[in-house]
Amino acid sequence: MHHSTSQFSSQSVSSQPSISLTAPSANANSAVAASLDSAAHAKAIQLASTTLETCATACVGNPTAAMSAAHIVTTLLWQSMRWDPSSPRDAACDRLVLSDAAFSSILYAACADLGVPAFIDGAWRPLTTADLAKFGAADGPLPVTPTAHTAGTIALFEHPVTAHGAGVSHAVGSALAARLDGVDRRAFVLVSDAELREGQLWEALAHIAEERLTLVVPIFVVGTPATTDRSANIDGPDALVRRLAALGFHASAIDGHAPAQIRTAVDEIAAKAKESRPTAIVARTTKGWGAKSLQGGAWSGRIPTGDKLKAALEELRSTRVGLTRSFGADIARPTARAKHAAAATPSLADNLAAVPDFARAMRDADMFAVYQSGRLASRRAHALALRTLGRAHPGTVVLEADARAGGASELFAQDRTLLSRAFDLKSAESHMVSVASALAAHGKVAFAAASARGFVRAHEGIESAARAGAHTTFVATNAGLGALTAGASEAAVGDVAWFRGIAAQRDSAGNPSGYLLQPSDAFAAYALTLAAAEHDGVCFMRIPSGEQEFLYNAETVFNLGRFEILFDGTDLLIVTAGAMVHEVNRALDGLDEAGISATIIDLYSIPFDEEALLDLANENGGRILVVEDNSGGALAAAVSEACTASGDAFTIESMCVQVLPTSARTYDEALKAAGLSAADIVARARRMMGSRPRAQQ
Amino acid sequence: MHHSTSQFSSQSVSSQPSISLTAPSANANSAVAASLDSAAHAKAIQLASTTLETCATACVGNPTAAMSAAHIVTTLLWQSMRWDPSSPRDAACDRLVLSDAAFSSILYAACADLGVPAFIDGAWRPLTTADLAKFGAADGPLPVTPTAHTAGTIALFEHPVTAHGAGVSHAVGSALAARLDGVDRRAFVLVSDAELREGQLWEALAHIAEERLTLVVPIFVVGTPATTDRSANIDGPDALVRRLAALGFHASAIDGHAPAQIRTAVDEIAAKAKESRPTAIVARTTKGWGAKSLQGGAWSGRIPTGDKLKAALEELRSTRVGLTRSFGADIARPTARAKHAAAATPSLADNLAAVPDFARAMRDADMFAVYQSGRLASRRAHALALRTLGRAHPGTVVLEADARAGGASELFAQDRTLLSRAFDLKSAESHMVSVASALAAHGKVAFAAASARGFVRAHEGIESAARAGAHTTFVATNAGLGALTAGASEAAVGDVAWFRGIAAQRDSAGNPSGYLLQPSDAFAAYALTLAAAEHDGVCFMRIPSGEQEFLYNAETVFNLGRFEILFDGTDLLIVTAGAMVHEVNRALDGLDEAGISATIIDLYSIPFDEEALLDLANENGGRILVVEDNSGGALAAAVSEACTASGDAFTIESMCVQVLPTSARTYDEALKAAGLSAADIVARARRMMGSRPRAQQ
Repeated sequence: MHHSTSQFSSQSVSSQPSISLTAPSANANSAVAASLDSAAHAKAIQLASTTLETCATACVGNPTAAMSAAHIVTTLLWQSMRWDPSSPRDAACDRLVLSDAAFSSILYAACADLGVPAFIDGAWRPLTTADLAKFGAADGPLPVTPTAHTAGTIALFEHPVTAHGAGVSHAVGSALAARLDGVDRRAFVLVSDAELREGQLWEALAHIAEERLTLVVPIFVVGTPATTDRSANIDGPDALVRRLAALGFHASAIDGHAPAQIRTAVDEIAAKAKESRPTAIVARTTKGWGAKSLQGGAWSGRIPTGDKLKAALEELRSTRVGLTRSFGADIARPTARAKHAAAATPSLADNLAAVPDFARAMRDADMFAVYQSGRLASRRAHALALRTLGRAHPGTVVLEADARAGGASELFAQDRTLLSRAFDLKSAESHMVSVASALAAHGKVAFAAASARGFVRAHEGIESAARAGAHTTFVATNAGLGALTAGASEAAVGDVAWFRGIAAQRDSAGNPSGYLLQPSDAFAAYALTLAAAEHDGVCFMRIPSGEQEFLYNAETVFNLGRFEILFDGTDLLIVTAGAMVHEVNRALDGLDEAGISATIIDLYSIPFDEEALLDLANENGGRILVVEDNSGGALAAAVSEACTASGDAFTIESMCVQVLPTSARTYDEALKAAGLSAADIVARARRMMGSRPRAQQ
Repeated sequence: MHHSTSQFSSQSVSSQPSISLTAPSANANSAVAASLDSAAHAKAIQLASTTLETCATACVGNPTAAMSAAHIVTTLLWQSMRWDPSSPRDAACDRLVLSDAAFSSILYAACADLGVPAFIDGAWRPLTTADLAKFGAADGPLPVTPTAHTAGTIALFEHPVTAHGAGVSHAVGSALAARLDGVDRRAFVLVSDAELREGQLWEALAHIAEERLTLVVPIFVVGTPATTDRSANIDGPDALVRRLAALGFHASAIDGHAPAQIRTAVDEIAAKAKESRPTAIVARTTKGWGAKSLQGGAWSGRIPTGDKLKAALEELRSTRVGLTRSFGADIARPTARAKHAAAATPSLADNLAAVPDFARAMRDADMFAVYQSGRLASRRAHALALRTLGRAHPGTVVLEADARAGGASELFAQDRTLLSRAFDLKSAESHMVSVASALAAHGKVAFAAASARGFVRAHEGIESAARAGAHTTFVATNAGLGALTAGASEAAVGDVAWFRGIAAQRDSAGNPSGYLLQPSDAFAAYALTLAAAEHDGVCFMRIPSGEQEFLYNAETVFNLGRFEILFDGTDLLIVTAGAMVHEVNRALDGLDEAGISATIIDLYSIPFDEEALLDLANENGGRILVVEDNSGGALAAAVSEACTASGDAFTIESMCVQVLPTSARTYDEALKAAGLSAADIVARARRMMGSRPRAQQ
């Protein structure tokens, strides 16, 4: 990493507004159009120059890629989008979503030029050109990949830039929120050619096409590959247009450096929307546009400094002279859109107060006979909680990948008044996770359900949602060993380990990045669903398949970060969670026969109250047996870490899925094959106690 | 889960060969075609009946979906594929790859009928119809989702069924291996309509289209959605044909229950291959084909038993009467294809013996001056090791997602003799991981590189590869905090946690499912690359960005499962790995000044020698400080678990990435922002020692 000596040039192209041009009307004559073009070129070149200087100072960023988007950014923000630079998150304003961070520097330049609000040092104020000197600095307001949270953010970036290919999913979330809120704002999303092979992009595009989400407008900012390049047939502008058209998009390839073509493409969206056809724009662009010396592969991804920078800035000035007229090179500030008067919606907290408890909810749902049977699928209790939440709070939304399989949204979607807030995402799990996270950014309380295995596929999106602090609960149905009856490829046994890695991170306020919740019965599933809704952040809830007997009752209170003591003993602390709680319970008789007095806790939340757990361990001779239906002993690791941090001596043994069985016809067969049946638990506890003297009590 | 009383019916349709029909010639007259059709219908109906009975006995499986593939399976295996049922893994034989496990029961039925070799109870023997009674049983040879490893497997299933959408990637791996081995076998792959929205499927299809992999033939087994269903415009047969054609496929929709149409579609592949056009077949099918009572949504995914089963079997018999002629209903056994005489290739072990050490390899590469500088990017040492391996062993293959960014394959691909074994997978990480795993199934030693962040996206595929025991190393370039200079969305700080979850699993022989390797310098990167190649299983190697000073020399030996002691002390054991080793080294002076005598170990492998580590900890007063550039203290958790399993008292403190900085311009800035600089390490060690009495030595 070398440091540039270049500073922000005082000679950079500036544009003091002198003549204000209004936005184009349908009858705009060619003179007006030429003036608009001239102004757009001037502004695009100014932003490109600023970008070059910003990146040279910071020694980070991708200036030539950013320059390829100069006209698109300029034309959208100044001429085509209906928005208000001083209040871009108003519900009525069109959105500009960034999918590839390569364009971030030029968007920052535009925001500084327009004075878009930025949250800096604890307060909102207009971003200035001087702020650009902080581009890429640690925890500054202008990270290379824009965030939408933590210490600093720019109001334009409502959604963080996360994985390649995820931006279109964020735009879909924005559009779905708009539809629910009854506003017609559009979400433009800039996609780069580096993202075209990412599967999630195509998941999102298929969703837009199927649901005819005409409020989402993907804009592909692509270079023109050499015709000798085989990938041109797949990723080149014409190939892209063909592929998008095959999906049902109105797609056309335009010159991404011709402002008039950009404006026309945007103007056409409304007409196509009337035909229920979503629009996609494929913009042919040039990396390092406007500065010949930066074009071609050699400068791709690199940062010119010193003389190279000077030469490039000079080239941009010459380009400007060629393209802008002597007058009319100034651009009008975007006309502020009329603000959306948001209906005063009651807060989630107020609404939650009215939510009935589980027994009452079962009665209301004509399921009291089932309730009295003392047995219910936790999944159904969760589904009931979702419907109850949906009725109580209008911001509740439920997404499901392959809805028919999981059933989480079953009751919710059966209620006609809630139907518009239930989304079936087919089997596009990665896309679903990003959409849920984006809906949360628009104030929704999102629940997204898929099989536990499906969420492994969406690992990255969940990590990003946690980092963004999205108010979202990911509900893994069919968690644990029950899924083995559908085959090993349907079972997820590593999910506790990876989600625990996410939960262990902290946000800037020191709070956990997420909670892992494992309900073991219907009471827990119902109550933890409500608790997750209340938590303004990410939860990951593992719901076991099958029916479970009730372990709890109306008096049991469930809180994030706590656990429940099921049995009080003196010899051995058994820690377990989820479906395994029932198997540990089944081991009680065997433990009794063996003369082992066990304390059993249902560790339904991670993180958990570590001190309380260690106290219990000490009361049980420091012996802990952890029983879990996951691989690698993730729960055991959590308990181990708490113990070793204390410095006291403990003995921990871990029972977990060491070898995943390849198949099983029943849940009991799966437990036996994995060595996690009640008999296995008794045998392990006996061995553990046999190898150490019993505590003298 | 209920148990059926139904048994394998003794009246099931049987077909004792009486008349043998030869495969169709180009001039096959209509009488021959009709006979072929008749025979195919009879066999398809027989397999469908067997499937219904198999699923009813096992109470698992998806019989109606399996029935929708009856004619495709029959026509491919008996009439169109060039293969040998008694030796399906011979290099010359066409492959049938399964993407969705929903079809597994009918493939098992076909394998039993043909006596395909199965590995049962430790030996290969032909599968029999009686074996079908074991369908879905725990760890039996016929799991619901076929595996390609462990206790039992059928020779037809060379690739396990893993995630939805991954089968086409496996077929691509098979085709790439065929190309390298100089054989013209084709890989047919059955894709279901439940997979159409999975992003990885479209990653794989784009790759086939770009590389014109005409040896891969995706066959989409799809139902016909109602025209009122919006998804028909995206996933319906005609929409699929349109989308595949837009990618460059020769695609046509056929009746998936018309044997002649299936045969014709397969016959056309060769002609299109001559034009470099890959073929995709879209087959319109009916769930529960042949038994009206099972058709329609109500039976989708359900298993008829008792009277329902009887009725369905009776319907199938009637269907057979209507479709097969009184003679010619018997089908010829597939003609065995001439075996491929595999060239005798020396084993990897023999070839590795000839591989030069790092110093020698640097000299050979004209990089001795760099070697003498004592400083080199670990990434480049890895790239050198790959080229050395590639030259020494013809089975070495290197895959890279976004090759230009990572550079792992740089030297490898520059060697013209190796170029054909280097694959650029663009940014399709999930696809790449499945392809690598499939190449390993064909005897290749695969290295697949992507950014550490990209691999998060491919988490599920890596888990599947580990479960399959694939001989594959996943190389995460730009691992750790160095990636922050490209933005938080490029940094992966949870990868140790999730890969450790995989490594903690055991295969059926009790070996770890994977090794996590973290080289800290060029010597380590070179040696661990060779060690990973030697290990017949999955490794995940984290290579830090930037250059590193040499810590080791030609004498250092690196072995999976070991660690290296860098410094011997008495007060405090510091455990670290990867790039963080250098930062801990930088802290040495500060520790000295504070009067702290630290033992430092480079824990470059997980799993590791736990006893040796605990001995060192005990020699250092039981105090352990773990320093890692990952979130959630995954390395600390590994050490904690080893400690608590021992029952002794240890104090472990963990320094890790608790809050991920949003950005950083330099690596040093990133370390400081994450609280992991040398100064932070000294401060933490002082606090730790201050809070406890120094060991008396």
